[in-house]
Amino acid sequence: MKNTFGNSITITLFGESHGEQIGAVLDGVPSGILVDIDYIKNQLSKRRPFGCISTGRVEKDEFSIVSGVFNGYTTGTPICLLIPNSNTSSKDYDQLKYLPRPSHADYTANIKYNGFQDYRGGGHFSGRITAALVAVGAILQRALEEKGIYVASHISLLRGIKDKSIDGLDDLVSVNCKAFPVIDDDVAVQMQKEIENAGEQGDSVGGVLETVVLGLPAGIGEPWFDSLESLISHAMFSIPGIKGVEFGAGFSFANGYGSQMNDAFVLEGDQVRTKTNNNGGINGGISNGMPIVFRSVVKPTPSIYKEQQTVNLNTMQEQVLEIKGRHDPAIIHRARAVVNALTAITIADALAVKFGTDFLNKING
Amino acid sequence: MKNTFGNSITITLFGESHGEQIGAVLDGVPSGILVDIDYIKNQLSKRRPFGCISTGRVEKDEFSIVSGVFNGYTTGTPICLLIPNSNTSSKDYDQLKYLPRPSHADYTANIKYNGFQDYRGGGHFSGRITAALVAVGAILQRALEEKGIYVASHISLLRGIKDKSIDGLDDLVSVNCKAFPVIDDDVAVQMQKEIENAGEQGDSVGGVLETVVLGLPAGIGEPWFDSLESLISHAMFSIPGIKGVEFGAGFSFANGYGSQMNDAFVLEGDQVRTKTNNNGGINGGISNGMPIVFRSVVKPTPSIYKEQQTVNLNTMQEQVLEIKGRHDPAIIHRARAVVNALTAITIADALAVKFGTDFLNKING
Amino acid sequence: MKNTFGNSITITLFGESHGEQIGAVLDGVPSGILVDIDYIKNQLSKRRPFGCISTGRVEKDEFSIVSGVFNGYTTGTPICLLIPNSNTSSKDYDQLKYLPRPSHADYTANIKYNGFQDYRGGGHFSGRITAALVAVGAILQRALEEKGIYVASHISLLRGIKDKSIDGLDDLVSVNCKAFPVIDDDVAVQMQKEIENAGEQGDSVGGVLETVVLGLPAGIGEPWFDSLESLISHAMFSIPGIKGVEFGAGFSFANGYGSQMNDAFVLEGDQVRTKTNNNGGINGGISNGMPIVFRSVVKPTPSIYKEQQTVNLNTMQEQVLEIKGRHDPAIIHRARAVVNALTAITIADALAVKFGTDFLNKING
Amino acid sequence: MKNTFGNSITITLFGESHGEQIGAVLDGVPSGILVDIDYIKNQLSKRRPFGCISTGRVEKDEFSIVSGVFNGYTTGTPICLLIPNSNTSSKDYDQLKYLPRPSHADYTANIKYNGFQDYRGGGHFSGRITAALVAVGAILQRALEEKGIYVASHISLLRGIKDKSIDGLDDLVSVNCKAFPVIDDDVAVQMQKEIENAGEQGDSVGGVLETVVLGLPAGIGEPWFDSLESLISHAMFSIPGIKGVEFGAGFSFANGYGSQMNDAFVLEGDQVRTKTNNNGGINGGISNGMPIVFRSVVKPTPSIYKEQQTVNLNTMQEQVLEIKGRHDPAIIHRARAVVNALTAITIADALAVKFGTDFLNKING
Repeated sequence: MKNTFGNSITITLFGESHGEQIGAVLDGVPSGILVDIDYIKNQLSKRRPFGCISTGRVEKDEFSIVSGVFNGYTTGTPICLLIPNSNTSSKDYDQLKYLPRPSHADYTANIKYNGFQDYRGGGHFSGRITAALVAVGAILQRALEEKGIYVASHISLLRGIKDKSIDGLDDLVSVNCKAFPVIDDDVAVQMQKEIENAGEQGDSVGGVLETVVLGLPAGIGEPWFDSLESLISHAMFSIPGIKGVEFGAGFSFANGYGSQMNDAFVLEGDQVRTKTNNNGGINGGISNGMPIVFRSVVKPTPSIYKEQQTVNLNTMQEQVLEIKGRHDPAIIHRARAVVNALTAITIADALAVKFGTDFLNKING
Repeated sequence: MKNTFGNSITITLFGESHGEQIGAVLDGVPSGILVDIDYIKNQLSKRRPFGCISTGRVEKDEFSIVSGVFNGYTTGTPICLLIPNSNTSSKDYDQLKYLPRPSHADYTANIKYNGFQDYRGGGHFSGRITAALVAVGAILQRALEEKGIYVASHISLLRGIKDKSIDGLDDLVSVNCKAFPVIDDDVAVQMQKEIENAGEQGDSVGGVLETVVLGLPAGIGEPWFDSLESLISHAMFSIPGIKGVEFGAGFSFANGYGSQMNDAFVLEGDQVRTKTNNNGGINGGISNGMPIVFRSVVKPTPSIYKEQQTVNLNTMQEQVLEIKGRHDPAIIHRARAVVNALTAITIADALAVKFGTDFLNKING
Repeated sequence: MKNTFGNSITITLFGESHGEQIGAVLDGVPSGILVDIDYIKNQLSKRRPFGCISTGRVEKDEFSIVSGVFNGYTTGTPICLLIPNSNTSSKDYDQLKYLPRPSHADYTANIKYNGFQDYRGGGHFSGRITAALVAVGAILQRALEEKGIYVASHISLLRGIKDKSIDGLDDLVSVNCKAFPVIDDDVAVQMQKEIENAGEQGDSVGGVLETVVLGLPAGIGEPWFDSLESLISHAMFSIPGIKGVEFGAGFSFANGYGSQMNDAFVLEGDQVRTKTNNNGGINGGISNGMPIVFRSVVKPTPSIYKEQQTVNLNTMQEQVLEIKGRHDPAIIHRARAVVNALTAITIADALAVKFGTDFLNKING
Repeated sequence: MKNTFGNSITITLFGESHGEQIGAVLDGVPSGILVDIDYIKNQLSKRRPFGCISTGRVEKDEFSIVSGVFNGYTTGTPICLLIPNSNTSSKDYDQLKYLPRPSHADYTANIKYNGFQDYRGGGHFSGRITAALVAVGAILQRALEEKGIYVASHISLLRGIKDKSIDGLDDLVSVNCKAFPVIDDDVAVQMQKEIENAGEQGDSVGGVLETVVLGLPAGIGEPWFDSLESLISHAMFSIPGIKGVEFGAGFSFANGYGSQMNDAFVLEGDQVRTKTNNNGGINGGISNGMPIVFRSVVKPTPSIYKEQQTVNLNTMQEQVLEIKGRHDPAIIHRARAVVNALTAITIADALAVKFGTDFLNKING
């Protein structure tokens, strides 16, 4: 359903990069959830440009919540959160009206919207829009944490450099506190150096984000067609730049034998667990009580300063394009906040489908 | 929405492996589409057990269409297709009631449905259910082909053995005719040998299916949240055993620079095309007129004959499990038909959202 | 979403009057509900032609449930219920291919489906399809009754003849047991006479069904856009022949003053109740704990034996039409079963949205 | 789906009467529609308090469109329209926290949202919210008019006083221009007098709005479950105060014979039309090319100045309530704008489902 996602809890996004305001409507949220403004700001800060590896547009992300919150708590009616756009420099983009940037949505938007799209800064396709998503998602993220359900993502791979895995709640909390989401600090330094190098060359890099959800009860998800993998991937593939999603062992399933990859059931006290977690916490589309583990690949930021070939849609001639404006050599560290927020929304929705509006009071004790 | 998927065209699946009948309801299909029974049978034949690498249950897949088709054409009202279950041997499964098979849905179904699930043969989670999907999907698959939109999948990777890529319509048509969907015949022999070896050891293998859609016009899909990647992945992750989906360059985006991975725009005659297709035909969630390319990883069949560890849910003791019954050492070649059918349904739905009920008359000339 | 209705619990209908089978898929039903075949048969019997006021096609309504039920209980996966068509006499309808019957769907179906519709006996528009709805709805109807939520409908008005109102559970149970759903037996005799008279003249009559739901807890429904009135009316207006729906005082609100029509709050023990129930148990779209009361008007059966004027769509000439075949002079008494079943499904869905999959265990003690 | 309505074109509403802002998101709108600010203002002016029969809160309704419009035209991405709340006097409502007003949503909101609702001025249940609906709906209303599809509503009944019917486009245009929507000017005077009288007594009145849609092509709507009646009634019953909806002859179907009520088909030139329009332009849930005619009953404004009985939810004692604040003795003339806007949205959505995103270019020549 286009710009709305979810069954019981729904998120609607609107806004353009250089429009007046961007925003989100989060509907179906239980009443009585504490809305912690500092928590929201903290999540937004993780999405903002970072140090010398993000040299771009500095957004203040001053948000306001104009509905659905009363006396600091959610009312149960739709929450609309707005973020005004400022610090926009639209003239940077004037040349792009007819010169679609390779691997951006400029060309497809032009076809789909028949030339009426707001082309400035990528319009509705801009990563800018994700700020509103991070902000409203934080409301649910915090509520889930209060119930022992934690979401975290780290950069598990970037140009061949690998981070170690998230191992338990301590790692998760620790990586959630870091501005650059990598567990191993030495690896973090290497990755940042790689990003800086790319930036110096006017180039860009991508990477893989690994997301872990701890504390999700077993029994969430559906066989057809709302498997937990379906819901999560549907959400993730909406985020600009994500081109692959895998759960548990993911693509390495292609090389192993069943006898190696199957997750044997074991007892931990009186709890049924699996010895390994190659299925990423999901069997038959339904959570099995183990950590949910998935990885999303983020492509290199398509905005680079190097010369590229494109087609002038006005003259219908091939033309060389040099992108101006402010662009990051990598967005993967910023995408972390978006992935976490959208994962929290998706998980909360799946819980609400099963447990109803009052799901927070019905889970985890 | 649980067992229904799609916006304008919807598919609903029902049935259990050892129940009376399985079936599907396909709704929103344009009126006046020819229903070619032989075409449907042909697709079903690709899903059936194959040669010595599929030693399992032989299903006749005799289907009947009980609604929505009149005088050989679709009426525009819901199409219900039924396949009776026969040749079921439920006693094979009696022990499984309390002994969940590792990496199967037995355990999660038991939690979710509170012990009321039909546990025989995996019940609603069985790959058996996909037969109805293949059959109704074939109706749209054929209709799309008439309009120049073709879907095909081949095994691109299996235990390190790689097939070459689908290169154009000839390869696509050729692989669609093969019982074992591999382009390079030598590679096919190696892969089959690998599967046979696994089977002889009572083990199983998985692999990667690469799917190509040719002829899809540019402009299909949405930025948020119904990107073409979101819709396709939502569909694919419903298929039992699929644990990863990537588009275009997919996870290898993590290693390249933007300058290497961006798809430059070029002119082919008066057509805007891209020089490379690392984005798999999709920019900003919207088709760009290039071939849609995605890969889905299928995990090794979890049913193996080797001893495995599980937990007896009755006694709550760990126990060794030996699976009986008839099981394939690989299902990836059979999954091909399911992936194609579900891709066709998803693509047709996205076209119907854009072009309306009468979409077939509005595309490709 | 076309032929599927509902949020958490969904119903999909398929089939044509003279097709092979009609049926329904009910999805999202909790696992562990007893499926009482006799209860279902009983509901179906109320939909069947009745005595001398229904001289039409006698259907056996032999149904089979082919999925979603195991050992007599729902499994939690989709329930598909099938009813084979028999006793069809398609030749009665041959003339209707180009001669649309006034006030039937023949003409609009022809436009919508471009001539490909199954025109025999009204095809997918036939009241016949409602048999499957009644049968699957009965599963939920019974489950709700076990939790103290009762649905009943009676004919409150027919050609100026009025029945008295349902006053409490005794009336409700009593009218649910009657073959002709009227509380006052004298009124029932008069109404039946009116129907017989119309039948003897080759004519038909309509009437008003009043539906009462007892035991629904307060707090069910949404302000925008899924008010309880919205959901119920959406459902009711799908039933062929229903042309008006009103809640509580309904259209008589147009004549009273606020001071007369407002429902004052009072205490009954420690329960908040309203003194009157002009709002039919719903304030602001949400149930208030009082009985839900609504009325649906059923138009006179459009199939009459008198000569009527139509347009021959083949010759595009006006033409006199004489309808043949078997038709009831009234369907309102049979529609009762359909209204009850669909109300039960709608109420169950609204409960499941609020309380989750396991709603039956969370309501009414 | 809660606060979102529609299939292809969706509307989401947010905001509370005394919150910061109210607003709407309209999604799925075709790109390239002219956004005429004066037209929107004109529709809003019809919703505003009127003369001496509306003595209430004067709202400026200064709206801003913050997304989805670029250079005066829709972009095809979600349109967010905001209206700031001003002139609120929340202290008027303080007593209402525990004293639910009869026939308002105060009590049900308190149950549903567990005391966390914004109770000031009815919060999310306030008629105030409809201002945003009127404003965004106007965008589609104007676009439909350009294609010859017109929507208008008039007060057909108010305390026994009847207006004549809308007879053709001239009447429709004329009533759309009037501040008090009644065709017969003498009737208008009588109705206004009736409203003033009620107001002087501290009381209120309701009435019936009759809505006509001209120019809708045949073939729009679905048999199950998205009949045109289902979609329209679903929308109408979301509007606060509407308690009944009937199509064509509506509840008077209960008194006529089939032979009197059936709409005979006739030819007008080469157009198939019906002689009468008792079915209100809809057969089998699908438009037949005749004017769509429906009536909605609006209950008397529940806010009256007379003493009423309620229950103090804090002390759980019965208590007399005297409502303060500013309230209209009738809202039906203002509701007209809401009904028209929501009808336009619903009709546009149904057209988009059939004809696709580009529906405006595919209808009516």
